[in-house]
Amino acid sequence: MVKKPKAIKTPPSEEELATRLKNVREKMIQENLDFLVCFDPVNIYYLTNFAFYVHERPFLLIIEQQGPIKFLIPLLEKSHVIDRAIGDLDIVNYYEFPSPQGENWYEIYEKLIGDNANVGVEPGMTMEIYQKTTGNKIITDILDEVRIIKSDYEIGRIFHASKIVSKGHKKLLKICMPGMAEFGIFQEATSTMTSKIIQDIPNANFKATETTAAVWPPDISHEPHLVPDIFAKMQKGGPHVSIVQAQVDGYGVEVERTFFLGYIPEKAKKPFEVMFNARKMAYDMLKPGVVMSEIDKKVRKYIIEKGYGDYIIHRTGHGFGITGHEAPYIAEGYDKKLEANMVVSIEPGIYISGIGGFRHSDTVLITDNGYIKLTKAPETLEDVIINVD
Amino acid sequence: MVKKPKAIKTPPSEEELATRLKNVREKMIQENLDFLVCFDPVNIYYLTNFAFYVHERPFLLIIEQQGPIKFLIPLLEKSHVIDRAIGDLDIVNYYEFPSPQGENWYEIYEKLIGDNANVGVEPGMTMEIYQKTTGNKIITDILDEVRIIKSDYEIGRIFHASKIVSKGHKKLLKICMPGMAEFGIFQEATSTMTSKIIQDIPNANFKATETTAAVWPPDISHEPHLVPDIFAKMQKGGPHVSIVQAQVDGYGVEVERTFFLGYIPEKAKKPFEVMFNARKMAYDMLKPGVVMSEIDKKVRKYIIEKGYGDYIIHRTGHGFGITGHEAPYIAEGYDKKLEANMVVSIEPGIYISGIGGFRHSDTVLITDNGYIKLTKAPETLEDVIINVD
Repeated sequence: MVKKPKAIKTPPSEEELATRLKNVREKMIQENLDFLVCFDPVNIYYLTNFAFYVHERPFLLIIEQQGPIKFLIPLLEKSHVIDRAIGDLDIVNYYEFPSPQGENWYEIYEKLIGDNANVGVEPGMTMEIYQKTTGNKIITDILDEVRIIKSDYEIGRIFHASKIVSKGHKKLLKICMPGMAEFGIFQEATSTMTSKIIQDIPNANFKATETTAAVWPPDISHEPHLVPDIFAKMQKGGPHVSIVQAQVDGYGVEVERTFFLGYIPEKAKKPFEVMFNARKMAYDMLKPGVVMSEIDKKVRKYIIEKGYGDYIIHRTGHGFGITGHEAPYIAEGYDKKLEANMVVSIEPGIYISGIGGFRHSDTVLITDNGYIKLTKAPETLEDVIINVD
Repeated sequence: MVKKPKAIKTPPSEEELATRLKNVREKMIQENLDFLVCFDPVNIYYLTNFAFYVHERPFLLIIEQQGPIKFLIPLLEKSHVIDRAIGDLDIVNYYEFPSPQGENWYEIYEKLIGDNANVGVEPGMTMEIYQKTTGNKIITDILDEVRIIKSDYEIGRIFHASKIVSKGHKKLLKICMPGMAEFGIFQEATSTMTSKIIQDIPNANFKATETTAAVWPPDISHEPHLVPDIFAKMQKGGPHVSIVQAQVDGYGVEVERTFFLGYIPEKAKKPFEVMFNARKMAYDMLKPGVVMSEIDKKVRKYIIEKGYGDYIIHRTGHGFGITGHEAPYIAEGYDKKLEANMVVSIEPGIYISGIGGFRHSDTVLITDNGYIKLTKAPETLEDVIINVD
């Protein structure tokens, strides 16, 4: 048994953020960039610990090889930035959106970057910002690449978040009885998680915190992205499919299960077994050096051989970090190799109209030799048939 | 007294969405566009009634002058789109993100648009999508321009949403006693709103619904974008500044007040009066034909004359619609004219360290002759000194 990491509940240190910036600057040298501009709120959070909702007033990070990061923000948000941001930042504010001539964000922005510089921009930058960016613009994935490998601090935060969703899932299974409505499950399971978050992190940033819990009852569990009706009722039998997700003070994770209330219908037995074996097959391949598309390919091949090829509608897994959905992807078409300190979901699924959905998902850390499941919930058929008497 | 609109709680009709599309197509002709591509989830919601969270799997609307809108979506979301989308849509799905070669979203996307066509794209489109868009690309604000004038249906929805936040604000004022913690206020006021939403719209789309309620107690009310600590306590006196916002099944509104618990401190009297008069000055100018920057300029001039110029940190107002923050802007630098059926906030504010913040905000409909306040909460000094005995 591999030792689990230690859960961390504290904000990042100046050193943690300085290391992230150092990693970004190393890649800027490799790509010959004088500047890197971040617009994506997720990347800004990663580099500053400052979370915000995007609206019409832009926030921009302007990174050079030396000196503090320049952080262009609306005046209105200055106290908020000072309250939450960490690291070596030079705050530059503009007045409002829009502003009188000479005071608009873009009029200040263009003075921060020279005309002849090489300027890296994110693929997620909008055209509006891109057009106002001066210099020789080069689209680059630097932030995605840096974020993909987690520091010990991030792993500690992700493990803490995983404990929160495991607790939420435990509550969900406890209250999920035939006749119980979707909305009640959502309320009780999310309250359990929110209370625990506040208890663990009294100063948690609620702009970077949210919790979700839902169950797809058997009649819709074959449609994993349909949003269940809030009055939908749980039923005897199954398969029910749960989703418990959270972003806990900045770190996103999930745990999901296929389960049955009282008994398993005969027609659900084989698909459950195939899903269970496909999942084991994926786990057995999880270690540094393995090409991610190969995992998806092998899992898919097995499911097709068992006769369920038409019922695969998504990839085997995706990454986690400061979001609950990001690179890397365990998918055909994604040919990068697994590395230690990546965090991914493993969730091969089968979705059959008239029978239901079959998918377990966990948040999983890749280690030097293999992996550690960070989330915890019942897995085997025996354990996912819930006694409802 | 002008008659208020009728509150509407039902989803949009096919006709409503057809009219929106017709308005978009008229502008496409004016701009000589063969295609218009929408990536922004807000614009997609406006034209299809389908709401979703953006993650790595893109959703794209491809509009031509004739025929159904093409809606490029990930396979996984197909049942969800069919469940919620309204209107004449041709759903085209791609397999996954990423996918094996030939099945990726961009490989399907490029077949939907010719090489020589004039293709309008939104300013908010990301570089990633822009780069994969073929044809002669032209950045255009068509959707913003169409959305800025509300239909009778939209006004009915916005009025319904306004009633929800007014109810939430009434609850907030009722429970806001000295010693009460921020978190309790949030929970009770948002529960009140959520319960009412579910009662009014049992099938409300919770991907397009959220509620927020908070009070800035006097020691931080001069910092309107600082997020209050969840354990912050309400205090005797004031100014307290409340925010109650909601997106109610797709329509965003707000109501905000400056208020006092038990008494008004002497030093708060003059700034309250100046804010109150500035607000009245803005309302007195509200009617079609007035240039929006002129309103902001006049309000600002008055506040400066009264000696509070250093304490203005934001514009007089912003628009509402399917979001709670959008064009038009009542701001210096925004020189468009008000038109009937625009919906805006009126919220001139003064924020003084050591004294506090002063701002009332309402959701306001521009009519043929003037305006109607759609939200309701106490306004005068007499009415905002809350009895706490």
